[in-house]
Amino acid sequence: MIDRSTALQLDAADPLASWRDEFVIPDPDVVYLDGNSLGRTPKRTVEALHRVLDEWSGDLITSWWEHDWLNLALSVGDELAPLLGAGPGEVAVHESTTVGIFQQVNVALDLAADRGRPRVVAVDDGDFPTDRYVVEGIARLRDVEIRHGIDDLDGVDVVLRSLVDYRTAELVDLTDETDRARQAGAVTVWDLSHAAGVLVLDLHGAGVDLAVGCTYKFLNGGPGAPAFVYVSERVHDRVTQPIWGWFAQHDQFAMERPFDPRRGVGRMLNGTPPVLGLTAAREGIRLSVDAGIDAIAAKGRALTGFGIELADQFGLVNVTPRDPARRGGHVAVRHPDARRLHAALGERKVIIDRRDPDILRFGMSPLTTSYADVHEAFAALADLLATPD
Amino acid sequence: MIDRSTALQLDAADPLASWRDEFVIPDPDVVYLDGNSLGRTPKRTVEALHRVLDEWSGDLITSWWEHDWLNLALSVGDELAPLLGAGPGEVAVHESTTVGIFQQVNVALDLAADRGRPRVVAVDDGDFPTDRYVVEGIARLRDVEIRHGIDDLDGVDVVLRSLVDYRTAELVDLTDETDRARQAGAVTVWDLSHAAGVLVLDLHGAGVDLAVGCTYKFLNGGPGAPAFVYVSERVHDRVTQPIWGWFAQHDQFAMERPFDPRRGVGRMLNGTPPVLGLTAAREGIRLSVDAGIDAIAAKGRALTGFGIELADQFGLVNVTPRDPARRGGHVAVRHPDARRLHAALGERKVIIDRRDPDILRFGMSPLTTSYADVHEAFAALADLLATPD
Repeated sequence: MIDRSTALQLDAADPLASWRDEFVIPDPDVVYLDGNSLGRTPKRTVEALHRVLDEWSGDLITSWWEHDWLNLALSVGDELAPLLGAGPGEVAVHESTTVGIFQQVNVALDLAADRGRPRVVAVDDGDFPTDRYVVEGIARLRDVEIRHGIDDLDGVDVVLRSLVDYRTAELVDLTDETDRARQAGAVTVWDLSHAAGVLVLDLHGAGVDLAVGCTYKFLNGGPGAPAFVYVSERVHDRVTQPIWGWFAQHDQFAMERPFDPRRGVGRMLNGTPPVLGLTAAREGIRLSVDAGIDAIAAKGRALTGFGIELADQFGLVNVTPRDPARRGGHVAVRHPDARRLHAALGERKVIIDRRDPDILRFGMSPLTTSYADVHEAFAALADLLATPD
Repeated sequence: MIDRSTALQLDAADPLASWRDEFVIPDPDVVYLDGNSLGRTPKRTVEALHRVLDEWSGDLITSWWEHDWLNLALSVGDELAPLLGAGPGEVAVHESTTVGIFQQVNVALDLAADRGRPRVVAVDDGDFPTDRYVVEGIARLRDVEIRHGIDDLDGVDVVLRSLVDYRTAELVDLTDETDRARQAGAVTVWDLSHAAGVLVLDLHGAGVDLAVGCTYKFLNGGPGAPAFVYVSERVHDRVTQPIWGWFAQHDQFAMERPFDPRRGVGRMLNGTPPVLGLTAAREGIRLSVDAGIDAIAAKGRALTGFGIELADQFGLVNVTPRDPARRGGHVAVRHPDARRLHAALGERKVIIDRRDPDILRFGMSPLTTSYADVHEAFAALADLLATPD
C-alpha cells in the first residue's frame, strides 16, 4: 500500500528535489500536474525579462547588435540542441509550433523523391489536431494526397507524427520508426512537443532529418513560447522552406537583392524574432540543460511509474504504457466523468489536464513535481470517486 | 533660420509633449530618432509584464481561461482596430509580419477571380525585402507568376505593396490605389508596417480587403512584437488561409474533428498565441489609442515637416515628399557617406536609422520625439559634415 509517507521518502531521496526552488511558486498548496501543458515560471525568467526590458529601454535599436538579438532565434536553438541530441546550427526557435509544422512538412515534400505522381503525406487521425489540420491545409495548397494512418507506409512520401501520444503518453521508438519510414522511401517530420525536455532524445543517432516542437511544456518556456525546428545538417543544402522572410536572407541588410537563403537552419527563419518570448524560452531551456536531461528523464520515468502504481491501487483505468521505455512524461486515466472530475479536482487546488472525451492527464514535469504531488492528486481523485455527487 | 529656441517653442506648444513621460527613458541625453524601427518602452508595458508573470506563476494553466489568454490574439486585435479604421472582429495579432504576409497573399490568391491561367502577383522591386521574398517563395509553392512593378496592373490578380515606402517615407493614397487595383480585377494586400500608429488609417472607408503590419515600430509593441492581420468582414466568408492550426478551429477543444475554421478573422490564427509578446503589444497599442491617433498623426506631420525644413537649412539632400499628405512618419536624407555618418552620430548619442546604400532615416515617433530631438539630430549631422574626417 502506497501512502503519503512513501511519497515523502521518495522526495527525500530525489536528487532533483531542490530544483523546485528555482521556480516561482506563490501558493505551495496547489498541486500542479499540468506542466506538460504549461510549465511553471522559472525565477531566472523573471530576472531575464527585467534585463531584456532594460536592454530595450536603454540600448533601444542598438540592442539588436549589442545584445545579439539579431541572432537570438539561432543562439537559443544552439542552447536547446543538446536536449534534442542535435548539434550547433541545427535548431532554430521562432514562431508557433503550427508554423513550424507547416514549414517542415513542406520541406519534407521537397526532400522526398519524385515518383511521378502526387506526393502522399501520412498522418494519423488520432494525432494532435494541429498536425492533422496543417496537413489538410497543405493538401489544399499543393498537389498532395493524405494517407490517414501510419501503420502502412507503402507509397508514402512524408510522415508527420508525434513521438509521444498527447492522450496516452505512448512513446514510439524514434530510431525504428524513422528507419521504417525511410525504408518505405518516406521522410519523417517528428513532432516532439510532448517529448522535449522530459525524454533523452538523440535525433542525430536516430537519423532524424526534420523535427519540430514547443518550448512551453516540459521546457518551461512560458505561455505561447516560440517553437523549435530542427533540420539535420545532412539535409541542410537541400532544404527550402515555404515562408521566405528577411531573417532567412544570407546578407540580411543588403536590401536590394533577390532571396538568397542563409546556410544551415537559419534559412528556416521568417521575420523579426520575438525577443520577449525567446528570452523566456531561453531561461526555461537553460534550467533543463543545467539540471541535466538524463536526471530529468530518469525522474520522469520514476514519477510516471509511481503514478501508474497509484492509479492501480485506486482502481483507476490507466491507459499509459507500463513499460517506462514506452511512455512520455504524463499518466493518462480514462473515466467517463472526466469533465466533472477535472473541475472538482481544480476546486481542491489539484490542477491536472483533460482531453475530450474521457482522458484525465497527470503531467509530471520532473523539475517541479514531487512524489507527494503525485500522491495527493491521485488520492484526491480516488476520494472524489468514493464520494457521492 | 531655425535654431534650438524654435524647437523649444514648438515643444512648449505641443499638446502631446507629456506623453513622453509614459515611456522608460533611462538616459535623457540620447536623441532617439529610430522609433520607426523599434519604438521605446512604455512604462505600462513593464507593469503589464509583471502582471502577466504573476498570472502565469499564480494561476498557471487556468490563466488561459481566467485571464482570457485564449482570446488574446483577437482581443488585442480589437483594441488595435480603431487605429486602422477597422471594426471589431476584423483584426488579429499573432506570429511575425512575414507569416502574416504569407497568409494574406495566399488568401488574396484564392479571393482573386479565376481567369483560366496562372494567377499574377504584382510586387515592386523597391518594396521592403520581406514582401518581395514572400512572393518569390509563394511562386515556388503555387502556380503563380510574379509581375515586377505595380505601375501597370493590367492582367494582375494580387497586389502586395507597402502604404509607406520604408526608404523615402512616400505615402500613396490608400483609397485611390485600392480602387485602381480593383478596377484591374486585382485584390490588394496592404503592408502597413510603416503606417500603423503614425497615420490616420481608414481601411473600411478605403474599401481595403486585406492588410498586414507590425506592432514594434510606431505602436511601441516591443522588440519582435507579433504582427497584425486585417481581414475585412466583407470577405470573411470567402477567406481560407494556408496554415491551419488549432487556434483557428471553430470548436478548439473538440479534438477529434476535421478542420472547421472559425468565423471571422479568427480563422487566420495558427498556434498558441505568444502571451508575453501580445501583452507588450497591447500596452503599446493602448497608449496610441489613449493619446488619440488624430493628434499623433498631426504631430507626425509637424515633426517631419520641421525635419525637412532643417534638412533644407543645412543643405542636405531630402528625398521625403514635401506634401504632408504624401509622407509617413520619417524623414529620409540621401548621402554617399551614410554609413560613416550614421556611426558618427551614434557616438554622439544621436540614434537614427540607415538603409543601404545611401539613405539616412530620421524616424519621428510622435509620442516620444520632441522638436528639440529633431533639431539636435539634424544640427549634429550638419556639424559632422562641416568637420573634416
